[in-house]
Amino acid sequence: MSSTTPAGASAGADTLLDVVSAGVDVIDLGRQLRTGMPQSPNHPQFWHTLPRRHGDMTRADGGSAANDMITTGTHVGTHIDALAHVSHNGKMYGGIDAVEAGIGGKYDQLGVHTIAPMMRRGVLLDIPALLEVEHCAGGYEITVADLEGACARQGVEVRAGDVVLVRSGWGSLFEDGTAYLGKESGVPGVSEAGAQWLAEHEVHAVGADTIAFERLAPSGGHALLPAHRVLLVEHGIYIIESMDLEALAAAGRHEFTFVLVPMNIYGATGSPVRPLAVVPA
Amino acid sequence: MSSTTPAGASAGADTLLDVVSAGVDVIDLGRQLRTGMPQSPNHPQFWHTLPRRHGDMTRADGGSAANDMITTGTHVGTHIDALAHVSHNGKMYGGIDAVEAGIGGKYDQLGVHTIAPMMRRGVLLDIPALLEVEHCAGGYEITVADLEGACARQGVEVRAGDVVLVRSGWGSLFEDGTAYLGKESGVPGVSEAGAQWLAEHEVHAVGADTIAFERLAPSGGHALLPAHRVLLVEHGIYIIESMDLEALAAAGRHEFTFVLVPMNIYGATGSPVRPLAVVPA
Amino acid sequence: MSSTTPAGASAGADTLLDVVSAGVDVIDLGRQLRTGMPQSPNHPQFWHTLPRRHGDMTRADGGSAANDMITTGTHVGTHIDALAHVSHNGKMYGGIDAVEAGIGGKYDQLGVHTIAPMMRRGVLLDIPALLEVEHCAGGYEITVADLEGACARQGVEVRAGDVVLVRSGWGSLFEDGTAYLGKESGVPGVSEAGAQWLAEHEVHAVGADTIAFERLAPSGGHALLPAHRVLLVEHGIYIIESMDLEALAAAGRHEFTFVLVPMNIYGATGSPVRPLAVVPA
Amino acid sequence: MSSTTPAGASAGADTLLDVVSAGVDVIDLGRQLRTGMPQSPNHPQFWHTLPRRHGDMTRADGGSAANDMITTGTHVGTHIDALAHVSHNGKMYGGIDAVEAGIGGKYDQLGVHTIAPMMRRGVLLDIPALLEVEHCAGGYEITVADLEGACARQGVEVRAGDVVLVRSGWGSLFEDGTAYLGKESGVPGVSEAGAQWLAEHEVHAVGADTIAFERLAPSGGHALLPAHRVLLVEHGIYIIESMDLEALAAAGRHEFTFVLVPMNIYGATGSPVRPLAVVPA
Repeated sequence: MSSTTPAGASAGADTLLDVVSAGVDVIDLGRQLRTGMPQSPNHPQFWHTLPRRHGDMTRADGGSAANDMITTGTHVGTHIDALAHVSHNGKMYGGIDAVEAGIGGKYDQLGVHTIAPMMRRGVLLDIPALLEVEHCAGGYEITVADLEGACARQGVEVRAGDVVLVRSGWGSLFEDGTAYLGKESGVPGVSEAGAQWLAEHEVHAVGADTIAFERLAPSGGHALLPAHRVLLVEHGIYIIESMDLEALAAAGRHEFTFVLVPMNIYGATGSPVRPLAVVPA
Repeated sequence: MSSTTPAGASAGADTLLDVVSAGVDVIDLGRQLRTGMPQSPNHPQFWHTLPRRHGDMTRADGGSAANDMITTGTHVGTHIDALAHVSHNGKMYGGIDAVEAGIGGKYDQLGVHTIAPMMRRGVLLDIPALLEVEHCAGGYEITVADLEGACARQGVEVRAGDVVLVRSGWGSLFEDGTAYLGKESGVPGVSEAGAQWLAEHEVHAVGADTIAFERLAPSGGHALLPAHRVLLVEHGIYIIESMDLEALAAAGRHEFTFVLVPMNIYGATGSPVRPLAVVPA
Repeated sequence: MSSTTPAGASAGADTLLDVVSAGVDVIDLGRQLRTGMPQSPNHPQFWHTLPRRHGDMTRADGGSAANDMITTGTHVGTHIDALAHVSHNGKMYGGIDAVEAGIGGKYDQLGVHTIAPMMRRGVLLDIPALLEVEHCAGGYEITVADLEGACARQGVEVRAGDVVLVRSGWGSLFEDGTAYLGKESGVPGVSEAGAQWLAEHEVHAVGADTIAFERLAPSGGHALLPAHRVLLVEHGIYIIESMDLEALAAAGRHEFTFVLVPMNIYGATGSPVRPLAVVPA
Repeated sequence: MSSTTPAGASAGADTLLDVVSAGVDVIDLGRQLRTGMPQSPNHPQFWHTLPRRHGDMTRADGGSAANDMITTGTHVGTHIDALAHVSHNGKMYGGIDAVEAGIGGKYDQLGVHTIAPMMRRGVLLDIPALLEVEHCAGGYEITVADLEGACARQGVEVRAGDVVLVRSGWGSLFEDGTAYLGKESGVPGVSEAGAQWLAEHEVHAVGADTIAFERLAPSGGHALLPAHRVLLVEHGIYIIESMDLEALAAAGRHEFTFVLVPMNIYGATGSPVRPLAVVPA
């Protein structure tokens, strides 16, 4: 989805508002939340229902209100992992004791409420464009050479503080839910080496168009997640999963303003998000 | 909450990225989602819990993942009303039949998935600053004269396409849940006349720091909601409720870039949101 | 599960309490509710989580309380279908208009709250014992001849008001979730003819050890459910699904006191249940 | 609610089935589960909604199925406390370490799945009938003298293994939700002494018509729950709360067959239940 804010009068000394008022294009990087969409079976399924529909109850003045009930995990649809999501050998990022941190039923430290809204430089690394394939194969490991090759091909560099989105093309399978999960086929993505490369570039967050960001071996499930360890536990770098990177790649935008506003759920380990790439119209 | 994106190298011809890279301040206009926060009793309560905590299950490689379960209405915390939320005399905005629209259990038309992410001019109208009170009284109707007085006092004008945030100061009662709901006291806000004034200015969306945006009479409950009718049903203007406008008012920012990214829930009548006011650092 | 109430002193003129006090054996016909158990994908998944565990919060007096959050459909685990669950050509049992009945979001008529708790004669028809197989094959239709053959073999008759449990043996696959659902294999059960036979015997309710009570064709899904129509819509006979009939069959009990207490959920279309077969010890 | 199973032909040597077939009266001791009913604010609210109503989707053969989504705590409506619900000084019943027992997110020991279905002698102790009041006052402590007085007045004795239901009459306030919760007024019930008396009689379970079984002091909330400690932690006696004892008292039945079938939720701390008093017709 892409929408355009029409140009309007400028606001004087506010340079941001000047640019925004001149019109921006928004490319939606989030998946629509629908009951039945593909998601990890480890998390409560997303369900949406209408407890009250129009026609159920009408007020004296002729008005009626319909409403919703949602039950869901937070690691469903396009979502961000808070640092509290993962521990290794009993420790979370910064050496925080992972068991102690959960006492009380909220992660006061490193919960998703500690992730500041993001408006910063985003970079797309388009791996299938580099490899000249429609999408990387199931279980394919995106290597450091691939990451560097994509930078070179695109003429972009990864800088400290960036949000780096690694496109595998696997997102094109999203509508076919079972294929997207890749239980037997595996799922493409970076693994430990790629994660190290991203961490060395001191990025702020990373994202991908797959269910678990990192490479999953064929029939391997989620038993080993070395990139999660490197990024979340060792370097405090957020991970965004199940992104829709197709429109962004099609638009050929490799640098952009990346906007992400996590839900401010106190103590949660993640949040559904709807990240945006924004560019002047 | 306010966070600063540190200045970085610019990105060439991308004027938006130039400004963002020079650093922006983000003022959070959303309430934190916490179990037990004040919310309308007409909607499913927000609940967050951890099905799995660190320590419950550890993978062979020493890793563990904690996760969440959420159940909630969509009109909880800071949230936006989709046009599908309200009907009048059986019709929604654009004359759409409200009962028919709900068949299937999703509002295909006018659901929250039809609200485009917003990045546009925001205006704060600070009524207590005009009236020289800490907050407007329960049940106080914010009049057209108040709205125009706030514009004049602040030296801002409301333009077509703006998002207008009407501060009553009532948000300072949020932490004391019962007072905030204002069941007996009523709640301040615009009513039909103020909503008409906003609609005449062709605004894109409106927001307030109260539970129902509009004035609620003492002991009157939600039985009459004329501003909802004017805005949602007659003019297709979105309503944002339970905002936190205290930091924005304290910062004295009356014009800013307003950012709002609704959850893309197919067919829902609303969505929790975390709106932002963004200004150059 | 089977438990014995030890014999105690009798209660005088209360013949029921006399028998119960003399000791009864209870055979549990319900599946345990566990997150991840096999269930129909058409219904919200059963999830259980602990928002508060011991250790999270301790009262001044040294006490603490742990608690639960559940989200679930009602047609999960062992469950009963209320008459409101199914309509045919727009009508529910008794010719009630099915669309109109749902206005308000509760089935005031024919909802699960209208099912009286059951304590009545139960009959087990053990089809694999008759056919001398471990379990009926996927997609096998249990015929009228099978039902009558089971009665003859067992020396029992089906009477008006009975609850008749048709064992296919398919319940032995419950622990292997995917096989139990039988998406490709189909699932054994009665079809229209068997349902007619049961209806002619004026039974009060029927049950089976499969997910949908009736025969599902291989790869056919739930597209055609003629037995549901015959029983629920045409005759007002309740259906109990996903029962555990293995222990009852192993015990060789073909007649017993059947106890079923549905959850009294106002307006719901079904309820998880834990039916019991009770016999004197 | 009371329903009668009509008399039928007997089943030979099955003395239980003989009695049941001769007809029994069932008195429902459970509250109907409705969205908005009074419940403790410490537990997730009961919500029921219909994701699919008749008319939303019709199969090719003319059939349609409506279904439900429920979110709820387990300590809502009429419910039973499992022994895992409460700990004291870090220990549950039998000296089990309460923190350790919750690791994994399920109480493998003492969870509600460990409560066997009950069919045993039930005794009603009708305190308002003894005291000649409509209902005990808020905050009134039901004393040992009251319990013994009720036994004497009714001519019943409490025996080992019984389920004892202590009626305070407070249940008559259930429909007026706020009064029933008794936040300011307090709630009547036994306290430590009464719980000790019940424990000395070696009862199997106890129940009451109030939200917390035991006496709550005016404005005292749930800060001190000595009867819970005595019963659940020290003696392993189950507690049933928010029962409807009005019809049973009105019927003047003080001894009966008590039937209770907890939901078999693996690892949960409690379960909604619908207990029954059953007597020969």
